[in-house]
Amino acid sequence: MKYVYSFGNGKADGSAEDKNLLGGKGANLAEMSSLDIPVPPGFTLTTEVCVNYMKEHSYPSDLTGQVDDAMKQMESIMGQGFGDPENPLLVSVRSGARMSMPGMMETVLNLGLTSKTIPGLIKKSNNERFVYDAYRRLITMYSDVVMEKSMDDEPADGEGIREQLEDILENMKSEKGFSSDTELSATDLKTLSELYKSKVKTVLGKNFPDDPSEQLWGGITAVFSSWDGKRAVNYRRIENIPDHWGTAVNVQAMVFGNMGASSATGVAFTRNPGTGENIFFGEWLANAQGEDVVAGLRTPNPLNTETKTEDTAHLVSLDEFMPENYKTLDDIQKRLESHYSDMQDIEFTIQEGTLWMLQTRVGKRNGTAAIRMAVEMAEAGQIDEKTAINRVKPEQLDEIMHPNVDSNAEKNADFLAKGLPAGPGGGVGQIVFTADDAETWKNEGKNVILVRNETSPEDVHGMHAAEGILTAKGGMTSHAALVARGWGKCCIVGCSDLDINRTKKTVTISGREFKEGDWFTLNGSTGKVYNGQIKLIEPDLDSNPYFGKLMEMADKFRTLTIRTNADTPDDAKTARNFGAEGIGLCRTEHMFFEPERIVSMRQMILSNTEDERRHAVMNLLDFQREDFYGILKAMAPDPVTIRLLDPPLHEFLPQTDEQIMELAEELQVSREEIQKRIESLHELNPMLGHRGCRLGIAYPEITEMQARAIFEATVKLIEEGETPFPEVMVPLVGTVSELSHQKKVITDMADLVMEEKGIRFDYMVGTMIELPRACLTADQIAEEAEFFSFGTNDLTQTTYGFSRDDIGGFLPAYLQEKILAHDPFQSIDQQGVGELVKIAVEKGRSKKNKLKIGICGEHGGDPDSVRFFHHAGLNYVSCSPFRVPIARLAAAQAAID
Amino acid sequence: MKYVYSFGNGKADGSAEDKNLLGGKGANLAEMSSLDIPVPPGFTLTTEVCVNYMKEHSYPSDLTGQVDDAMKQMESIMGQGFGDPENPLLVSVRSGARMSMPGMMETVLNLGLTSKTIPGLIKKSNNERFVYDAYRRLITMYSDVVMEKSMDDEPADGEGIREQLEDILENMKSEKGFSSDTELSATDLKTLSELYKSKVKTVLGKNFPDDPSEQLWGGITAVFSSWDGKRAVNYRRIENIPDHWGTAVNVQAMVFGNMGASSATGVAFTRNPGTGENIFFGEWLANAQGEDVVAGLRTPNPLNTETKTEDTAHLVSLDEFMPENYKTLDDIQKRLESHYSDMQDIEFTIQEGTLWMLQTRVGKRNGTAAIRMAVEMAEAGQIDEKTAINRVKPEQLDEIMHPNVDSNAEKNADFLAKGLPAGPGGGVGQIVFTADDAETWKNEGKNVILVRNETSPEDVHGMHAAEGILTAKGGMTSHAALVARGWGKCCIVGCSDLDINRTKKTVTISGREFKEGDWFTLNGSTGKVYNGQIKLIEPDLDSNPYFGKLMEMADKFRTLTIRTNADTPDDAKTARNFGAEGIGLCRTEHMFFEPERIVSMRQMILSNTEDERRHAVMNLLDFQREDFYGILKAMAPDPVTIRLLDPPLHEFLPQTDEQIMELAEELQVSREEIQKRIESLHELNPMLGHRGCRLGIAYPEITEMQARAIFEATVKLIEEGETPFPEVMVPLVGTVSELSHQKKVITDMADLVMEEKGIRFDYMVGTMIELPRACLTADQIAEEAEFFSFGTNDLTQTTYGFSRDDIGGFLPAYLQEKILAHDPFQSIDQQGVGELVKIAVEKGRSKKNKLKIGICGEHGGDPDSVRFFHHAGLNYVSCSPFRVPIARLAAAQAAID
Repeated sequence: MKYVYSFGNGKADGSAEDKNLLGGKGANLAEMSSLDIPVPPGFTLTTEVCVNYMKEHSYPSDLTGQVDDAMKQMESIMGQGFGDPENPLLVSVRSGARMSMPGMMETVLNLGLTSKTIPGLIKKSNNERFVYDAYRRLITMYSDVVMEKSMDDEPADGEGIREQLEDILENMKSEKGFSSDTELSATDLKTLSELYKSKVKTVLGKNFPDDPSEQLWGGITAVFSSWDGKRAVNYRRIENIPDHWGTAVNVQAMVFGNMGASSATGVAFTRNPGTGENIFFGEWLANAQGEDVVAGLRTPNPLNTETKTEDTAHLVSLDEFMPENYKTLDDIQKRLESHYSDMQDIEFTIQEGTLWMLQTRVGKRNGTAAIRMAVEMAEAGQIDEKTAINRVKPEQLDEIMHPNVDSNAEKNADFLAKGLPAGPGGGVGQIVFTADDAETWKNEGKNVILVRNETSPEDVHGMHAAEGILTAKGGMTSHAALVARGWGKCCIVGCSDLDINRTKKTVTISGREFKEGDWFTLNGSTGKVYNGQIKLIEPDLDSNPYFGKLMEMADKFRTLTIRTNADTPDDAKTARNFGAEGIGLCRTEHMFFEPERIVSMRQMILSNTEDERRHAVMNLLDFQREDFYGILKAMAPDPVTIRLLDPPLHEFLPQTDEQIMELAEELQVSREEIQKRIESLHELNPMLGHRGCRLGIAYPEITEMQARAIFEATVKLIEEGETPFPEVMVPLVGTVSELSHQKKVITDMADLVMEEKGIRFDYMVGTMIELPRACLTADQIAEEAEFFSFGTNDLTQTTYGFSRDDIGGFLPAYLQEKILAHDPFQSIDQQGVGELVKIAVEKGRSKKNKLKIGICGEHGGDPDSVRFFHHAGLNYVSCSPFRVPIARLAAAQAAID
Repeated sequence: MKYVYSFGNGKADGSAEDKNLLGGKGANLAEMSSLDIPVPPGFTLTTEVCVNYMKEHSYPSDLTGQVDDAMKQMESIMGQGFGDPENPLLVSVRSGARMSMPGMMETVLNLGLTSKTIPGLIKKSNNERFVYDAYRRLITMYSDVVMEKSMDDEPADGEGIREQLEDILENMKSEKGFSSDTELSATDLKTLSELYKSKVKTVLGKNFPDDPSEQLWGGITAVFSSWDGKRAVNYRRIENIPDHWGTAVNVQAMVFGNMGASSATGVAFTRNPGTGENIFFGEWLANAQGEDVVAGLRTPNPLNTETKTEDTAHLVSLDEFMPENYKTLDDIQKRLESHYSDMQDIEFTIQEGTLWMLQTRVGKRNGTAAIRMAVEMAEAGQIDEKTAINRVKPEQLDEIMHPNVDSNAEKNADFLAKGLPAGPGGGVGQIVFTADDAETWKNEGKNVILVRNETSPEDVHGMHAAEGILTAKGGMTSHAALVARGWGKCCIVGCSDLDINRTKKTVTISGREFKEGDWFTLNGSTGKVYNGQIKLIEPDLDSNPYFGKLMEMADKFRTLTIRTNADTPDDAKTARNFGAEGIGLCRTEHMFFEPERIVSMRQMILSNTEDERRHAVMNLLDFQREDFYGILKAMAPDPVTIRLLDPPLHEFLPQTDEQIMELAEELQVSREEIQKRIESLHELNPMLGHRGCRLGIAYPEITEMQARAIFEATVKLIEEGETPFPEVMVPLVGTVSELSHQKKVITDMADLVMEEKGIRFDYMVGTMIELPRACLTADQIAEEAEFFSFGTNDLTQTTYGFSRDDIGGFLPAYLQEKILAHDPFQSIDQQGVGELVKIAVEKGRSKKNKLKIGICGEHGGDPDSVRFFHHAGLNYVSCSPFRVPIARLAAAQAAID
């Protein structure tokens, strides 16, 4: 079994293909070496060694032999010997997992420095100060990473050996009146090394090892062990990296950027990772080690003159300072980008005039950059369009569509609390506690953040007025979240640290009280709430040509149609601008809350006879006809799926005594009667109660009115020369007989309207598939339905038995304990809910093989879910307007899969 | 195509096998005829003619010819002619469907009497009075059934032609001072016939037909049409008889039991249908027509001396009055029962000394009789044991296990309202409105009916004290229903006509107000509520040897194990007496409501730290250990499945301000704090909220405490020489990681208790499968679970998206509109919920092929559901104690299938 892969001198045992075995860093070092790019030679211990070590806490018996062989090869390339007193080789030991986990695991540098090799190195480098500086760095790192971390009792934070050694350094500096490390002389550093070693002995009870081999194996084991360190484990949880992957370990000859004026070190990107501009971009430091650039103790210089800014114009760039080396580097970066066909993040060191490449990897980039690079590389023929499409994460589109909190300013902001990131983007405003206040303040020209325990449809005007919405309760698909996402508005929900006092108009967070008018900043993309005002960065979609080009490319490949969830003509237009090809869900319940409408609604609910009820319902006809006219017109000739009334009736009744009084007066009924009806409509579990088609079956006149409004609006539009296409959707069907019942009411009404108006029109009647039973009996339902639209919100609720309004009580614990990998309301649960979707598609199509099937739950805007729906054979997904581009991209990526 | 099947004279075209085609009556007439039993000849028009007529409203073209031929055959056997003035044949036209629908369709007798045939019949019968009596009966029936019912405008009830003709009869009788019809002379009846005919002409605008053929076809069509009459349709809805079956029509030669002293008529059963005693049992009337016996206008005589009672001792029996005819009849009934191998319900007529059999069919019987007959017939070798088991409907066992409302007394009782029959049997008592009152009154020696909007666990003491429970809300599996059935107590739920005023202690039903102390009688088997006291008939199971024998027989065949749902040792013992072989569901939440326990529970909920919470929980350990000790002991060595705490925590918190005050004092916390906790625990949909294993995951100390209590009780019993077998059941698992989490807590505790006590014990850890997701991922869950127990209540709630607490809002409409065939909480929905059960069984066993799988929802006591579970491959069903015998029988029947 081969555990050790060598590289260097234009050759390598492995290649970039071997990421799983060699980790990203090791594979890329091998690849660069094979490309004859100057890489300090070395070898990689495979991830298999790690996996095995995690289990057995021991190494394979032949590992030592393989390491010895590889070390010999390295020594031969370098012409140095590890532990050789005359010409000592120093090595670094670094981690390198399949996926980059920056800073999460350990590194040890300068291994091989011992009492025996130090004199040789001094002689050879002719630089005593450099050697003792390297030595004291080795002691610090090694005692911390290898010696202390391997002990059972780890010290509490802040009292570790590293801190104690640094105290010694600081003491020496202050005694000598030095302000910088560079002022320390070779002698100082030598003294320091001795002080360090004796401190290590005292604190850790062991000597700092003076044997190179012991140092090497200590380093290797420490790096492997750091895979299971707390930081790494937490990071893997967050990034969904499996524990069983393990890390590789790279042992590599040290090169030094700090060996004097002809030495330097730097990090760079083959293109600008913040803008995507195709220009070599990076930072470097003269006479420094790599960690100095990353650590930020010294301000690095710009890499080249082209990328100098106002702030860096005075600094010398590498092309100015070392033009030869720069040219070599520039050639290499071009070769690397071309070889990997992607923007590279590289690290280099120049040791006494010689350039060494230490790392190359695919560079991280933000959304703006990702889009531009993908488009430009495709246009340049560097990558094909499929690759370009896959280069942009759908979530990255979000970044460019919303104003965002400036991440630099955010770092130093006064963090208050974290909730669920329900509506991306940033929001800054003065806090208010009621929807009415939000509106009033907004009208006075103030920016507000609406802070509520939860929102209800009656808060919609205030939500609209606010820059951001912050709620203490609710999940990612709560009312606040749904409405906010529909508008692309910043929103944080389920922020359970909020303790709101509505009477006093204050909110207390971790003991700090904030009052109405105080400023908050919300980062809706991360769910973080800050005290005060943080700068927002505004998006500018129109001036971004790459966005449109990417969308065009995506549209060439995707087979899923993308619709939108929209309840108003405005939303419909927004979505259409983002590329929506129809409305997949037009909810009608929001249409009944305007004062002049809610009265009729309430009158209907309070009716004692069918006649009274029908009369009250028919008062709503004109309003509804107008609603549907507007929406059908905005979307014509694309289809508009209109869902019939869905929520339980009690949602329309007044809540407070005052409202009840008012209503009683208005309708000339007694308060007791209203109270009694409210009580009789009270349900223990309204989500599973008298709602959806159960309403239309109990009160067919509601369905009749809505159907009439839809069809009369259709006729009106046809008369005006439009070609509207309504799809009437019956909600919450669990059994085919429910659909048959409602379908008859609808088709009878269509016939009647056609007869009355003398105009024929096309329409469809279908159903929402949002109950497990509907999925299980989809073959029967398909006999009646002309289309299916999955309502995956409710389907998730019923499949899991989770109330999305109440999930806040245990979801955080569930995610924490890894009982759930993710919130199933955000990304579809493929094993459970998804299984039902597949069953329903299969059963439905077994009866109607061309059955149109879509999905209109919140999952329609989630990339992973879109991918799932594509593979499940759906015809379309429907999502909120601001998610349409994301869905388009995700659908294309799914089609490319 | 053959539409007409003749019978008579020892021959027949059809046989008893042809029930689907000829209906029950026609098939049996054919069968009797083939057996050479004297049957008046006739013919049957098939159900296919009916089905065709319902669709096309016309007859096949060759039907007339076939009827004519059959009529000729009949005439030839009888030596009479239909319409022959000299020797006229009269016929009856009767319905006869595949399943008996007594009295639901129409009959016309004496067809063939016309102005032309009357003189001939008078001459031949030498009985003018008889002929005109027959004629006026024909006019009455025909004008009503054929002439009026065929008109488009049916008159409102009470103004029909039948009533108007009867008014004429009554007028004549009162003018003449007669009190009985028999006082009318031939001349009177002749006059009456003329008056009738002219009234028919006036009212219906048509002449009564004087043509025999017109009469015949009128009769045939009227009978076919009555298949779609309101009564028949309603009956079919109730009995689940498909509309497409149709009825056959039997045309048969009339024989007359009212032709003088040597004529008679009677109905009889080959065994007593009320007791099952093997004795020929029936009633007869001299000189009467069959309808007179059924109509109950004259008190009929007992059939034989053996069956005379105190009340009928003075009446002459048929064996005394017509010994020869009786002997022939007795022979025939013996042959019929033996031939059909089942108790027969027969009708006969003796016309002038000649016995004719008019009908035989399987006799209806009550539960007591069904059991006795089945057992005795099996013991006598008349039927095999499988047949015997299938002869008893599982529901019939219910009748003999509960006191029941006397059905005779019930007929004349003051009916108030109808709810859902949630707990079978009868209950009589004075109404009270609180659980405390129920208990107090009961202690004063009064019988009470507890009337509530709904019940909660805090009402349990009052429910126990009551003779019956009546609620305005809730479904068949509401709290009240579950608890009542567990005790075998009479209970009616969801009686929405109740308008309860708790303050005034009154209930208003349809405008009538009743106050505390008024008497109600509940029929829990039908859901009917009556004003006043109705006599109850008490069951006596111990003195019924047949019950035990039937159960023994059933146990030989069934393969399903029957367990019980029981939370107390008493319930466990009751169930064991009924044959339960373990506890399938021991709920633990009821155990926390006693005053000394609820305090600790509330303290736990109000805890701010894990330590406080653990401390409060551990206060419950002693109680729980005692609970489990009792139950495990009562059931040992059979297994006891204990479900860990399941309901949301808010159920344990105080409801009223007063209770909150008390608690605040007791726990030394502020009222505000309690109030705040109550608010924070409030959920919009608690059924889908923080409950089930979600509690144990958030608060593992609850699971730890319960596991410790279970295992310590187990150890104690083992030390006492018992062999308890606990099965710990984790509720509401939706994903395997939930089960893994809880299983670890439980097995760790088991290990700890074993170590502490130094005793090893057996136990299992399994899960309730009650969410669609659990079914869909049952393969994963089976890797962790040692058993599955379907919780079909919650599974039905989530699969349908129905809250069983709120279903009352629309279920009645759904059943009425036939959107649901039955309440899915009563009998399992095989297509939806059942499909999930099958998926889960298959997936679960794919990973563990011997996985023990049961069901502990309410469906465990429903025969249709038990049958389904048997075929789905379950190992056991668990039901409330009083359903155990029903489940045993249903399981046997399923195994015999």
